[in-house]
Amino acid sequence: MFEKYFSQRIKSTSPSFIREILKVTQNPEIISFAGGLPNPISFPQEELKISMNAIADKYGAKIYQYSTTMGLDSLRQYIVDRYKKIHKMDITIDNVIITTGSQQALDLIGKVFIDEGDNVMVEKPSYLGLLQAFCMYRANFVQTQLNDDGLDIEDLKNTLKKYKPKLAYLIPNFQNPTGLTYTRENRAQVFEAIKDEDMILVQDDPYGELRFEDGERIPYIGVNQTEKNIYLGSFSKIVTPGMRLGYIIANKEIIRMLETAKQASDLHSNIFGQYLISEYLHNNDLDKHIEKIKKLYKSQANAMVSAMEEYFPKTVKFTHPKGGMFTWVTLEEGSDVLKLFDKAIARKVAFVPGHPFYVNPDKVNTLRLNYTNANEETIKTGIKRLAETIAEL
Amino acid sequence: MFEKYFSQRIKSTSPSFIREILKVTQNPEIISFAGGLPNPISFPQEELKISMNAIADKYGAKIYQYSTTMGLDSLRQYIVDRYKKIHKMDITIDNVIITTGSQQALDLIGKVFIDEGDNVMVEKPSYLGLLQAFCMYRANFVQTQLNDDGLDIEDLKNTLKKYKPKLAYLIPNFQNPTGLTYTRENRAQVFEAIKDEDMILVQDDPYGELRFEDGERIPYIGVNQTEKNIYLGSFSKIVTPGMRLGYIIANKEIIRMLETAKQASDLHSNIFGQYLISEYLHNNDLDKHIEKIKKLYKSQANAMVSAMEEYFPKTVKFTHPKGGMFTWVTLEEGSDVLKLFDKAIARKVAFVPGHPFYVNPDKVNTLRLNYTNANEETIKTGIKRLAETIAEL
Repeated sequence: MFEKYFSQRIKSTSPSFIREILKVTQNPEIISFAGGLPNPISFPQEELKISMNAIADKYGAKIYQYSTTMGLDSLRQYIVDRYKKIHKMDITIDNVIITTGSQQALDLIGKVFIDEGDNVMVEKPSYLGLLQAFCMYRANFVQTQLNDDGLDIEDLKNTLKKYKPKLAYLIPNFQNPTGLTYTRENRAQVFEAIKDEDMILVQDDPYGELRFEDGERIPYIGVNQTEKNIYLGSFSKIVTPGMRLGYIIANKEIIRMLETAKQASDLHSNIFGQYLISEYLHNNDLDKHIEKIKKLYKSQANAMVSAMEEYFPKTVKFTHPKGGMFTWVTLEEGSDVLKLFDKAIARKVAFVPGHPFYVNPDKVNTLRLNYTNANEETIKTGIKRLAETIAEL
Repeated sequence: MFEKYFSQRIKSTSPSFIREILKVTQNPEIISFAGGLPNPISFPQEELKISMNAIADKYGAKIYQYSTTMGLDSLRQYIVDRYKKIHKMDITIDNVIITTGSQQALDLIGKVFIDEGDNVMVEKPSYLGLLQAFCMYRANFVQTQLNDDGLDIEDLKNTLKKYKPKLAYLIPNFQNPTGLTYTRENRAQVFEAIKDEDMILVQDDPYGELRFEDGERIPYIGVNQTEKNIYLGSFSKIVTPGMRLGYIIANKEIIRMLETAKQASDLHSNIFGQYLISEYLHNNDLDKHIEKIKKLYKSQANAMVSAMEEYFPKTVKFTHPKGGMFTWVTLEEGSDVLKLFDKAIARKVAFVPGHPFYVNPDKVNTLRLNYTNANEETIKTGIKRLAETIAEL
């Protein structure tokens, strides 16, 4: 009825595949590895309750009033201090803008950088939330191959040469959907390949804090070596996603443009949530809290990998995540994952078929599994059901 | 440095005029009528503190987890019930989507309806937040004259005929920036003029609940007579703006498209805030709370109007708001309000020059005054200072 009124951009966007899948998995009998929900253990509920009462008493009306587009200074300062310590970045709060979750960060970057038809380079496969966000700005996506150790350098060079992308979007740590992490060597090679290109590099990092093994963190691609890098972060996986708080770190000139775009998008992010998270962070040991989450997710990841090793046919490959929330399964060539999905639902287990993570989904024989929101026993049962489904495909 | 990377849309958007003005007015000695902040009395702080503890106890992890794009059912149901009662609308929660403040509602409507160059009809003057939001989608704005009793019907008819706008954006109650309200007769005439047009009508209504005088509310334009109407509402002016919660009411087909656009924009609005406001609304008498706000704002509006009557030269005209938060001042033709602004700042009083409310600001002799965030004594002092500045212009 309203077809003639709708914009071209919205008519060319299909409703999220995952959203449709999640509807199917509402049935509580179904073991779902389809979503991407953090385990509720990652929400420090007791501490947040203390913090909310503290800010209500300390700040009064301020936690309810209109606020600034850039975000709460104390929260931005916490981010600055953490990135200085962890990533040795030389930044101030002028390099940080708070966003309504990382999804808004993607929307704002699209608003600020993408004109219709601009080439945007993403991993193959890539995060579907980015594909949706930039679809609204009618980006032309080009995908570059992601391998076990990071980007395929040969393919990367060819892609750069052929498409001269204006912007690239990468998730170097525990990528969504694959769970893969770029090695230190691969990052150096990627930077070498891109450093002279006229290209903005966006590194999204919602899972970087969730590295299962101790030891030094691998630095971002080209960190501290270029002003063309944009870094995204989020409190969704380490404190709470429901508060919708993410952030962008970039050169001040870029931040100013993002501020203008954000003002037109939602004026500012929920200020109560910003006071709450800031209060929590300044009064608790975030690293200690993250240790708890990592310990749990590591067990869950191991349970899933062990079960896949035990039950899956040897022709099926899967990633061994060293952090984050997902593993990526590759079936024998020619396997029909959509058919597998229907059969799996009949056996009461769900996953996300690989399709929405590709720009041109064709002959897709991959699927994404999430392990953070089911206990080890359930994971084992679910993988067994999935193995049985694969066997009968 | 990044000029070549930025999108056309962001390069054609200037940073908000008002934001620049608000920087000037940071000086606490300046009496500022420039902002649009609700008085903190409109935040039911005690009740919200009770509600936040209640939801933490009742719902546990749910208030921190990812949630649905459409918004919390209980909050949407509250909105449905209220609109059924007040506006006699025949709607269900499928007609309601929660947004991250009304500003996001404007952004989403832009995303869903506006292709580059589409004609959008707005009042003259119009709300600058809408102009900013739609600027991002490169709308072509046409302004139609707003008079004391509503739209100028002759001008409206000419505008419709000449530009065939795809969408119109109006604020029929206590408009921002003018404080004007369309009469019942004017609304009927407007509907008569537009009803056969191929045009979506968006009615934004952040101030409708703040009607100073008792008596029947004037119905929306064409309410219950067309599926092409979209209604915007917000909790910002009656509970808290800091929580960033607004909503859109529309035909289900439109809502579905808005849902897709919202998913790409921020996945969902802060769910803690939605639980909090829903808990507050279901356990308190909102109408009683609104009465308190109205009583205060009425006194403040009266104080400002009385002071203007007493101190302003007779050549200066101003609106007599019957609700909302603003009054609109028209100086003698040829007056330079930007010059007035500089002189006013020197005398320590601030306002918003009319410019950002016009699509083509030219020979602007108007300005906006806000009265909700200063007490009556301060209002009187500020208006006296402004009168002295006008006198010496």
